[in-house]
Amino acid sequence: MARRHKKTSYHKKLGQAPGSLTYTGPERVWKPSIELIQFNSSSYTDTMYDKSVDMFPHLKEDHVNWINIFGVHNTKLIENLGKQFNLHPLIMEDILSTEQRPKIEEFEDYLFFTLQMLTFDDESESINTEQISFILGSNYVISLQEEVGDVFDPIRNRVKNNIGRVRTSKSDYLAYILLDAVVDHYYIIDDKISQIIERMELQIIEREGDNQIVTKVVNLKKDALLLRRSIVPLRESIGNLKKGTSRLIEPETLKFLNDLYDHISIQGDSADQMREGLNNLIELNHSFQGARLNEVMKTLTIISTIFIPLGFLAGLYGMNFNYMPELHYKYGYYILLGVMACIVIAMFIHFKHKNWF
Amino acid sequence: MARRHKKTSYHKKLGQAPGSLTYTGPERVWKPSIELIQFNSSSYTDTMYDKSVDMFPHLKEDHVNWINIFGVHNTKLIENLGKQFNLHPLIMEDILSTEQRPKIEEFEDYLFFTLQMLTFDDESESINTEQISFILGSNYVISLQEEVGDVFDPIRNRVKNNIGRVRTSKSDYLAYILLDAVVDHYYIIDDKISQIIERMELQIIEREGDNQIVTKVVNLKKDALLLRRSIVPLRESIGNLKKGTSRLIEPETLKFLNDLYDHISIQGDSADQMREGLNNLIELNHSFQGARLNEVMKTLTIISTIFIPLGFLAGLYGMNFNYMPELHYKYGYYILLGVMACIVIAMFIHFKHKNWF
Amino acid sequence: MARRHKKTSYHKKLGQAPGSLTYTGPERVWKPSIELIQFNSSSYTDTMYDKSVDMFPHLKEDHVNWINIFGVHNTKLIENLGKQFNLHPLIMEDILSTEQRPKIEEFEDYLFFTLQMLTFDDESESINTEQISFILGSNYVISLQEEVGDVFDPIRNRVKNNIGRVRTSKSDYLAYILLDAVVDHYYIIDDKISQIIERMELQIIEREGDNQIVTKVVNLKKDALLLRRSIVPLRESIGNLKKGTSRLIEPETLKFLNDLYDHISIQGDSADQMREGLNNLIELNHSFQGARLNEVMKTLTIISTIFIPLGFLAGLYGMNFNYMPELHYKYGYYILLGVMACIVIAMFIHFKHKNWF
Amino acid sequence: MARRHKKTSYHKKLGQAPGSLTYTGPERVWKPSIELIQFNSSSYTDTMYDKSVDMFPHLKEDHVNWINIFGVHNTKLIENLGKQFNLHPLIMEDILSTEQRPKIEEFEDYLFFTLQMLTFDDESESINTEQISFILGSNYVISLQEEVGDVFDPIRNRVKNNIGRVRTSKSDYLAYILLDAVVDHYYIIDDKISQIIERMELQIIEREGDNQIVTKVVNLKKDALLLRRSIVPLRESIGNLKKGTSRLIEPETLKFLNDLYDHISIQGDSADQMREGLNNLIELNHSFQGARLNEVMKTLTIISTIFIPLGFLAGLYGMNFNYMPELHYKYGYYILLGVMACIVIAMFIHFKHKNWF
Amino acid sequence: MARRHKKTSYHKKLGQAPGSLTYTGPERVWKPSIELIQFNSSSYTDTMYDKSVDMFPHLKEDHVNWINIFGVHNTKLIENLGKQFNLHPLIMEDILSTEQRPKIEEFEDYLFFTLQMLTFDDESESINTEQISFILGSNYVISLQEEVGDVFDPIRNRVKNNIGRVRTSKSDYLAYILLDAVVDHYYIIDDKISQIIERMELQIIEREGDNQIVTKVVNLKKDALLLRRSIVPLRESIGNLKKGTSRLIEPETLKFLNDLYDHISIQGDSADQMREGLNNLIELNHSFQGARLNEVMKTLTIISTIFIPLGFLAGLYGMNFNYMPELHYKYGYYILLGVMACIVIAMFIHFKHKNWF
Repeated sequence: MARRHKKTSYHKKLGQAPGSLTYTGPERVWKPSIELIQFNSSSYTDTMYDKSVDMFPHLKEDHVNWINIFGVHNTKLIENLGKQFNLHPLIMEDILSTEQRPKIEEFEDYLFFTLQMLTFDDESESINTEQISFILGSNYVISLQEEVGDVFDPIRNRVKNNIGRVRTSKSDYLAYILLDAVVDHYYIIDDKISQIIERMELQIIEREGDNQIVTKVVNLKKDALLLRRSIVPLRESIGNLKKGTSRLIEPETLKFLNDLYDHISIQGDSADQMREGLNNLIELNHSFQGARLNEVMKTLTIISTIFIPLGFLAGLYGMNFNYMPELHYKYGYYILLGVMACIVIAMFIHFKHKNWF
Repeated sequence: MARRHKKTSYHKKLGQAPGSLTYTGPERVWKPSIELIQFNSSSYTDTMYDKSVDMFPHLKEDHVNWINIFGVHNTKLIENLGKQFNLHPLIMEDILSTEQRPKIEEFEDYLFFTLQMLTFDDESESINTEQISFILGSNYVISLQEEVGDVFDPIRNRVKNNIGRVRTSKSDYLAYILLDAVVDHYYIIDDKISQIIERMELQIIEREGDNQIVTKVVNLKKDALLLRRSIVPLRESIGNLKKGTSRLIEPETLKFLNDLYDHISIQGDSADQMREGLNNLIELNHSFQGARLNEVMKTLTIISTIFIPLGFLAGLYGMNFNYMPELHYKYGYYILLGVMACIVIAMFIHFKHKNWF
Repeated sequence: MARRHKKTSYHKKLGQAPGSLTYTGPERVWKPSIELIQFNSSSYTDTMYDKSVDMFPHLKEDHVNWINIFGVHNTKLIENLGKQFNLHPLIMEDILSTEQRPKIEEFEDYLFFTLQMLTFDDESESINTEQISFILGSNYVISLQEEVGDVFDPIRNRVKNNIGRVRTSKSDYLAYILLDAVVDHYYIIDDKISQIIERMELQIIEREGDNQIVTKVVNLKKDALLLRRSIVPLRESIGNLKKGTSRLIEPETLKFLNDLYDHISIQGDSADQMREGLNNLIELNHSFQGARLNEVMKTLTIISTIFIPLGFLAGLYGMNFNYMPELHYKYGYYILLGVMACIVIAMFIHFKHKNWF
Repeated sequence: MARRHKKTSYHKKLGQAPGSLTYTGPERVWKPSIELIQFNSSSYTDTMYDKSVDMFPHLKEDHVNWINIFGVHNTKLIENLGKQFNLHPLIMEDILSTEQRPKIEEFEDYLFFTLQMLTFDDESESINTEQISFILGSNYVISLQEEVGDVFDPIRNRVKNNIGRVRTSKSDYLAYILLDAVVDHYYIIDDKISQIIERMELQIIEREGDNQIVTKVVNLKKDALLLRRSIVPLRESIGNLKKGTSRLIEPETLKFLNDLYDHISIQGDSADQMREGLNNLIELNHSFQGARLNEVMKTLTIISTIFIPLGFLAGLYGMNFNYMPELHYKYGYYILLGVMACIVIAMFIHFKHKNWF
Repeated sequence: MARRHKKTSYHKKLGQAPGSLTYTGPERVWKPSIELIQFNSSSYTDTMYDKSVDMFPHLKEDHVNWINIFGVHNTKLIENLGKQFNLHPLIMEDILSTEQRPKIEEFEDYLFFTLQMLTFDDESESINTEQISFILGSNYVISLQEEVGDVFDPIRNRVKNNIGRVRTSKSDYLAYILLDAVVDHYYIIDDKISQIIERMELQIIEREGDNQIVTKVVNLKKDALLLRRSIVPLRESIGNLKKGTSRLIEPETLKFLNDLYDHISIQGDSADQMREGLNNLIELNHSFQGARLNEVMKTLTIISTIFIPLGFLAGLYGMNFNYMPELHYKYGYYILLGVMACIVIAMFIHFKHKNWF
């Protein structure tokens, strides 16, 4: 499983030289593995390697070489990779720092993508994040995941079974569909949170206000913010990329990037809508809370306003004065009961008139 | 009737290749149909075709060919259309995904428009959405609707009866008036919601706060957001289009696009105004709620403050002490009644002074 | 008098061809009239015409011709005017649609201005709007008003009596001072609303919260928004115009446009300030409402906390148990009174200490 | 002293020709005066003139001529000045209209600056404003103040005693230090308001909410807005000026303008911070108000919940039924007292448990 | 220790000439000291100097000379430094004014950086600020700190022990890692405040609202604002610097600046998130406060609604009317007790039904 989003203890790194390689994510002990998928329009091979193997000599010139690395917590592996592919030290640092802001950086020989894979944990109703990085070279794509996950399974299938245009395209198209696969997951998050919001709205309306919901809304707001922070910088980066200045991006891929940009824009809008929806929930709850207080107070006021004066009257004739002529009237008691009934009726009419029932 | 706006289950598509054609709207079984209207300044023909017919051979060079397609849920039809008119796969995907963000995309040979047709359901007081797409080529316009609707009836009439300049203009003017027809419907939404807001405002003022209104306001806020999301990206797209860089747009059409841009800007302002109006409603309700609570509490306080002390006095002389001289005064009872009356009067004056009545 | 701002029923026009002429304002039956003022540095003539007269032949080449039209509800008149001066159909449509967003549009031969004349109705304390349009040609200015009003009277006087530089300037300067006259009226609105806000603030403070004020604030907010919507697009338009790209604007007029731009900017700031002021009012009222509730509740609590225990004591000794020794003490009654007095004093000290008085 | 900021009655001017000279500030009767300071690196003279004297002939070519005018309410004086220095009529109008938005306007031969001098009145705890205008020519600076004030005294001293670089610089540096002197005063305002906010914060915390503070906060908000409105347009203007396009600004002065720009930016941030601080105060007060209400209600509830049931029990045994066996038990009274004590203790434990104390 | 952030009394400087040197921070008496570190790829020397020594003659041409100055409160020292390195007077003023807005200014021969070093005081849970300035010349870096601190210790070590690329790089890389070291500290602040927010959130939920938290939130809001104000202008400045227009920045350093820019962007986002988190806390507290009031009022209402009517009944049969037949029924008392029990049960059911328990 992926890791629940939390601030990484960045200060592990305080005082270190920039570009020095330290893994900042949660501790992991399992052995990372490397998968090399090589394909062109006519051939397809898929090989698993041990982490200690150098990838570079295995690349084939006329193929698209997709190096899929599971587990970025192995500093050695990343360092070795960096040397083979001549990566900038800061890039390697970024791969290892698992709380990067999404970005796309252009270098002479390759493009570096880093973004957040978001999955929704239905049980805790919160978002888990995993950092995914890509390096796009002229004939290779390196994808780096924190976990052994299945996010790229459908793409592996598509490549294997030659679905769509991936086999006839260059490495940039592969990078695009990897990006697209990650971004598509944002829709699920969006969907899930929207459903929760809808459900909570009903809850509030049914129960006429619900205090615990506010705690939950505050937590969902954090998730919505997280979603937003995964989306907004990515949108900007893809916006730059789709201008087509990088020679690594083929012209025909640009239309696809444009489409991806649109998808991300929709999600950006959704994240904003989500926030608004959550704020509305708080407002709704607040409003019901107020309404409830009003109702409670009305009940109290009606009962008090009716019985306190009656109680006073009863007390009055419970007094022990020697000379209280009413006490000796034959029908005094019944007259008093009548007066009390009149008071009750008058009060009822008064409150009815005031629209309190 | 059109479909109530809701999140489509986008994840139907998760893991599919980009550009793969899957219809994402609500399920539909009726057979789609195609209408071909061909006109120039002197002739006009209107023909209905079965979905399986190829349109391309029927186009006439010196006419404007308006291909109006009802029902975009038929993947086959769209695919076939795409092949005939050489449309980009992503465009076809966009036509089938019925929750597109409004946009205008420029291609070499054609312009693609997609926008939301909004209608207001008076019964449920909510907005229904339908996606409308256009493809504008040099001598044709393809319009694609989800439903067999009547939104373009007035335009068909105008073309048929040669009203306005449509018969003497090129296909870009037809596309413009189709756009204009959709955008004009936003005014109705705006109008309807404004009326509802006005009505609810009166309700709140009359009933001095109304709890159910908040639920309704929250729903209308979603509608206002939907309206806004239909408008803002469209405004931007038309803003780009009216710069006149596309060779498919004739110079004389630009003034009309400018006008359309103004209309959309007004609607954008209206959507903002609507939101502000809805927020004001909540504030108003909140304020009345508070006022009401104050009034209830004043009633309770006045009654309690008067009768609790009186009740105490009555209780005092209801005590059974052997030696309570007041009880044996001849006018003790009347004196006490007098004291009580004085207390009531004093309290009244006090509350009057405090402006509580 | 001008008309109270309300949404016009735009859908009258739904389905009509763009540029088709339909008057969308409130119904009017009086006959429109045309005034032709012609002047140069040495001569001045002022003639009233019937609506059916063609203006164009009356224009004098070496004069500034100011055609002032009262009543734009006459579609015929506007249509005729459009033909004479070769106006774009959309311009004529804009003149007739009385709810235009303020704008300035540049055409080959003329500039079109449309803006909102705002007047403040002191009785209903609300804003009335009237659409004013100008067409500025090389040697003429056409001004179109919905009503026979006196907004341009001071300008007519200035022209007649040769005050300022209007008689020695071209038509663009006349257009500028007409604009300026309309914009100056915004100051009055601003002033009036500011005074009302100030007055309401005092009311709230005096009455310690006032429920009806919220209803009024919500109405004023609509007015402030209306003011803002009249100002913001106009500022933008004038900002474009003062760049001096139009050949109809003389260079020396640019400084005046700059000044006008500053005025509008001040008003834009004022409108924002107004909104903030109105929001503050609601906050103020809310705060006083809360304070008042607190005060009411304190009163209730003090009275209850003192008398309920006393009442209990009185009730205690009103019980009819056979054996209650206190009842037979000679000074039982006085001792109890003493105890009660102690309780009251203790409570007083307690509440004083808690700062409740 | 300067005048308390209030809306000037702009409509005095309604209907007048633009550029016509009317003083719009508060009425003043004292005679304005003119001070002419002339200096270069070697000489310094300071002369006071009567308002009727023409300044232009007194200017010395190889000196910086600083004309300091006290009292802009004299239309004659300003008109005369305008003629001598060939000022644009709108500039003269701006000098006389004392509610100008801060701005810097570039003309062929001179730069016009107008800004707000803000002073803080410690007694009323509010801001007074005075409009200050400068005209910077190639060898002269005209400064115009509404009042005879001492804001420029330190600068006069610096010039006289040859402190800093002013005597060796041109007129643009003098204009800069005049500007700088005005802007420096904003720091005081900022400081004073910050102190008041700090003080009020303590007050709210000590008194646990304070109703009158809201009235004050609303007033301070107006002051903060005023500060902001003095700063923001000025920042923009100086931002333009420091680009160095005006030939009146020497290159070495640009660094100083840059510095001034930084100062104004800090103040802009401060004004925003102030607003946030004021909003926080309201929130704080609101929160304490709510807490206080809770406390009051708890007191009431505890007392009522304990004594109302006890009172009921007492009332029960005060009934006069013939057959009430408990009344005749020997220890009935003491048993009841015991039961009552138990109830009180149970209630105490209950409330303690609920954390109400 | 560093100084707690507070407004410096800027008006110390009011009326002084711009560029005049006055230290505006808190008073300090200790003697400042100067450290000169000189290194290149092969050599490293570290010398401490007295403040009165001129640095310039000690610089070595082929080394990077790092002059680290502790204590900027010594005006003499700064003045002397300025003369030696030919610094602009305004730069020296900026070094001494300890409340500068972060900025990077480009001069012909050097770059000037000023930024805020933020440290978190765990005890008072507030931020301390210290101004740090750098001057980057072609072969030297001057760093100026207010305090003798250890912020640059790790860097000194890195230089000494030849870790990373600092010894093989030019002075611009040294400046970069100094900047980076300061910026890295912002992460700690961010971390600490996030933890406090998390902790307070739990507190509010546990205690069901907590009044004192609002006071704390308001204080943390000020800290978040301070963080933001340290970050936002710096981001902008570094954004400009990384465009690479300064000849003092080597091309290979640009990638590092880019990385720094990303770090600062993350922190900017964090500061915004912090603010949102703090606002959520207030909302949460507000919501719990409301819920608590509701609970209190329900308790009161339930008790009152049950016992006030019962009390009335008891009072009724405590009356002393001569003729009250119920009093003489044999089972009157028991019947009444039964009626009372019924009322209690009915009320219970009623409140249960209303969901009040």
